[in-house]
Amino acid sequence: MSKVVCVLSGGMDSTTLAYHLRPKCDDLVCLSFDYGQRHKKELDYARDTADRLAARFHLVDLSSVTPLLGGSALTDDIAVPEGHYASETMRQTVVPNRNMMMASIAIALAVSEKAECVAMGMHAGDHPIYPDCRPDFVFSLRNTAQLATEGFSVPNFTFEAPFVYDTKAEIVMRGNDLGVPWTLTWSCYQGGELHCGRCGTCVERQEAFAIAGIGDPTEYE
Amino acid sequence: MSKVVCVLSGGMDSTTLAYHLRPKCDDLVCLSFDYGQRHKKELDYARDTADRLAARFHLVDLSSVTPLLGGSALTDDIAVPEGHYASETMRQTVVPNRNMMMASIAIALAVSEKAECVAMGMHAGDHPIYPDCRPDFVFSLRNTAQLATEGFSVPNFTFEAPFVYDTKAEIVMRGNDLGVPWTLTWSCYQGGELHCGRCGTCVERQEAFAIAGIGDPTEYE
Repeated sequence: MSKVVCVLSGGMDSTTLAYHLRPKCDDLVCLSFDYGQRHKKELDYARDTADRLAARFHLVDLSSVTPLLGGSALTDDIAVPEGHYASETMRQTVVPNRNMMMASIAIALAVSEKAECVAMGMHAGDHPIYPDCRPDFVFSLRNTAQLATEGFSVPNFTFEAPFVYDTKAEIVMRGNDLGVPWTLTWSCYQGGELHCGRCGTCVERQEAFAIAGIGDPTEYE
Repeated sequence: MSKVVCVLSGGMDSTTLAYHLRPKCDDLVCLSFDYGQRHKKELDYARDTADRLAARFHLVDLSSVTPLLGGSALTDDIAVPEGHYASETMRQTVVPNRNMMMASIAIALAVSEKAECVAMGMHAGDHPIYPDCRPDFVFSLRNTAQLATEGFSVPNFTFEAPFVYDTKAEIVMRGNDLGVPWTLTWSCYQGGELHCGRCGTCVERQEAFAIAGIGDPTEYE
């Protein structure tokens, strides 16, 4: 592929995606979003990843949108829930339609940049709680994106989520093979000095390393 | 319907849509977008329409997004093309993926508001130039929206474009029946003191009144 737009949060999945895409394309454009998330420091990790990969980096400010969307534990004064990522309490961390909003802007950028592909890092571990991480959403979004940009996007333009059937542990194994520097990725929803080790995404991070049988280099509180 | 989110630009189509929806729902939420358009004054018309209809009004700032998207005659220093709306020169007025971006944010708001429907004013006159105004896009977007929000949106949540098969002249006829005050709508891409009468959307406005056989009350330069 000559050019790909990669939605990059700075977490493990999208960072692994950027490393996965880098050798496959001439020009990699990383796109991150400030949506008022408490763990805004992930954006510094995203920018550093883009630099390390000699990719271009853009940050889009959606922080004026999220106040309209009511409460999410990721953005508001609702406590970040602790416990397992896939449990019902994690529904509080859903920002409604977040992936479709991000994808729509990434698709617009791809049309403007004449990129062949937009890629996002949804994976199987997200399916129980987040509907906008499931395969049927990905396929429908691809179709919508192609119809929305017909005659303006490059031929065979597509939206891809290469990890949509992979577990988080499989992503860790893949990332390890690709040489992803895990300490330069950020997961924790609390956004403190160190990873808290107790919120859903920290629990998921620890679990993924354990299942993958790979030592977790993360320093937790 | 109890609650509907209506994407409202302040132009003839979306204003007619708001008037069409008003008697059909208890609560109407109008959503407008600042995407750096030269004709930003349309947003004042949108706000006034919401007030007249006793609807709530939200404005979302996407002006940080459009500079990433390269040139469009609607936002940049490219001259607004004159002539017929459906001609090839009007391709310069396309902001890539604009309707999908706006729809995605409207869908997020609808989930948060527990609204049953998001409505947009695409119509048949837009089909030749704008792929994101065509029926197949609308149907695919509806499917994507339902999948993206499953378990979070209200049952039977939908995305609708009630005018997608109507011509602009048919919208004028419908709007006239609904009592839309046309002088309180704005079309012109130039965004000057008066409608210029020469840009694509002014030509389309004049043509729609003529075909509908309804006197055009607009004051042109």
